Amino acid sequence: MLTFTVEKTDSLARLGRMLLPHGTVSTPCFMPVGTQGTVKTLTPVEIAEAGAEIIVCNTYHLYLRPGHKRIQAAGGLSKFMGWNRPILTDSGGFQVYSLASMTRVTDEGAEFQSHVDGSRHMFTPELVVEIQEALGSDIAMCLDECPPYPVNRPVAENAAARTSLWAGRCSAARQPGTNLFGIVQGATYPDLREQSAKSLVALGLPGYAIGGLCLGEPSAVTYDMVGLVAALLPADRPRYLMGAGYPEDIIASVRLGVDMFDCVLPTRNGRTGTAFTSLGRVVIRNAKHADDPAPLDEACDCYACRTFSRAYLRHLFVVGESLGPRLLTLHNVRFFQRLMLGIRTAIEQGTFESWSSDFLARYQANTEPAQPE
Amino acid sequence: MLTFTVEKTDSLARLGRMLLPHGTVSTPCFMPVGTQGTVKTLTPVEIAEAGAEIIVCNTYHLYLRPGHKRIQAAGGLSKFMGWNRPILTDSGGFQVYSLASMTRVTDEGAEFQSHVDGSRHMFTPELVVEIQEALGSDIAMCLDECPPYPVNRPVAENAAARTSLWAGRCSAARQPGTNLFGIVQGATYPDLREQSAKSLVALGLPGYAIGGLCLGEPSAVTYDMVGLVAALLPADRPRYLMGAGYPEDIIASVRLGVDMFDCVLPTRNGRTGTAFTSLGRVVIRNAKHADDPAPLDEACDCYACRTFSRAYLRHLFVVGESLGPRLLTLHNVRFFQRLMLGIRTAIEQGTFESWSSDFLARYQANTEPAQPE
Repeated sequence: MLTFTVEKTDSLARLGRMLLPHGTVSTPCFMPVGTQGTVKTLTPVEIAEAGAEIIVCNTYHLYLRPGHKRIQAAGGLSKFMGWNRPILTDSGGFQVYSLASMTRVTDEGAEFQSHVDGSRHMFTPELVVEIQEALGSDIAMCLDECPPYPVNRPVAENAAARTSLWAGRCSAARQPGTNLFGIVQGATYPDLREQSAKSLVALGLPGYAIGGLCLGEPSAVTYDMVGLVAALLPADRPRYLMGAGYPEDIIASVRLGVDMFDCVLPTRNGRTGTAFTSLGRVVIRNAKHADDPAPLDEACDCYACRTFSRAYLRHLFVVGESLGPRLLTLHNVRFFQRLMLGIRTAIEQGTFESWSSDFLARYQANTEPAQPE
Repeated sequence: MLTFTVEKTDSLARLGRMLLPHGTVSTPCFMPVGTQGTVKTLTPVEIAEAGAEIIVCNTYHLYLRPGHKRIQAAGGLSKFMGWNRPILTDSGGFQVYSLASMTRVTDEGAEFQSHVDGSRHMFTPELVVEIQEALGSDIAMCLDECPPYPVNRPVAENAAARTSLWAGRCSAARQPGTNLFGIVQGATYPDLREQSAKSLVALGLPGYAIGGLCLGEPSAVTYDMVGLVAALLPADRPRYLMGAGYPEDIIASVRLGVDMFDCVLPTRNGRTGTAFTSLGRVVIRNAKHADDPAPLDEACDCYACRTFSRAYLRHLFVVGESLGPRLLTLHNVRFFQRLMLGIRTAIEQGTFESWSSDFLARYQANTEPAQPE
């Protein structure tokens, strides 16, 4: 079961608390991504120490390997991966379209070929709910159809309609107690977004996600769509913007009333050597860091910043040592949790606008360009 | 400076204590390998928590990247890598022969081409001492010439003679306070080993290593050579068998009076999915572990064993997640430290022989074959 309470607002920004089977989550929250049942390079203890209260895992990946029945037999995903806290599972719809090949989508479901071994599978709305229930997810997502950006109107219309159809079937299939979120589609067409939101709200689900954004469209368009949809969603249910990870986008969306975020950005960029810091992005391989005794971020309290110089971190990346990706991932995950803590504190104090301006002024002043190859 | 005290003996096995600039080391000890200034996948905190008191880094690698002068400017290797404890640096001789190409060895030194960028360099006995002093090593190793196994007598004789010649030059070049160990060579020829040991002992160095073994020769030959050399080394100096990593070899060599060991085995095997356990080696990818809720080793107190099932660890390896290599490395490093603790406790109690028999009977009964490809 899910209980969501908005404890404070600052204009449209909301400070909230979400009670889930495996624990409580303060919102606005950022959920690190642990696609295959592990937030890449990190232990569950490190994820918790970084301040994360909920993570996102992936139905498509875990269904293929090791298999949801195996995880169910092991006592559920939280127990299997040693993370005794809330987990949201994405439905796998996005991965079916982006990773699998030979995907054929009909109203029945999405038929696809595994990216692992080429075997054929069919995801129906009912099956993805069943898989997520087997995993023991605290929050399960409906199967959706997520077209790429840009997409023409007939395709967007069809995908949004099918997503709503499937949401109804997911809702009908779920066990009592399964916290199922609907996903608003409609690409960048305001009237389709509105239709999609209204049809999902009619299902009375415990929470709603905004999907099909952060796919390369201009930020102004993203924010228009987020604002439009958020205003149509019920005030007493959590709102989740899928795939938003840049601090600018998170802050802009909190301002529009979004409560939950996830993105691979902190973990993926950490592995490739880009750190998010209070003074902007740092590309650790850049030669300017070769003799720098300073930590990644003077303002950060993570183990990497408390222990190592930029010079050492750069050395690890230059010589290809896996401790480098691990330490930058740890730092980035902590950075995003500190960002959310800053946001929550500002909402609590009614200073979200000024806090955001200050944060972004520092953050955007010093960001380094990526290293030229 | 180095102070070594033998506190207890059990036949030839010795319980000792070595005081070094960065701390105290209980012997017999196993030194995890941190070639490039990092024990692969692990943080310094994890290495210390596993019980290691000293690690081995590599002169050849650190000279090439990031450069010993850069590390010196950063305050020395211990500070640079966040390991505020003792470090032994290998001289790089072995790596020059095994990794670099176009190596040309004369009495002057070893000329080689970097495996990183093909640049040409020359290691002389004086330079490798200078590099290790710049790194701030607690123990520096002489430049040696280490022929492969098998090797004919003239080559072995020549290499041993040159190693002794170089040891004299290393000793003459060192600063007061540099703890320089000589390396006994002589391949599998008893008389060459004897000559080599005697010529090094004449230099009055603070410690001695036995090099050129554990290169594929039969175990009986290894033990013959170790026993022969150990008996010729002064009782009041630490003895270091280079590259010995199998528990059987460590136990056999402690029995012959060896005090220090290093090997890539725990870290390398951890990364490739083989765990050392009290009941033998476990190949985690094997299908038999797919649903096994048991930890790697019921007898182990490491974080991996306290937290995760074999089923989960296998999943991490099957899907290629770097947390898998990290957790098995952590476990293996802890396994070897627990092994050494067991050895030290047994010597202390005068039960080394019976402890060894019991340990090996359990350890050798259940070792799994490597997974067939």
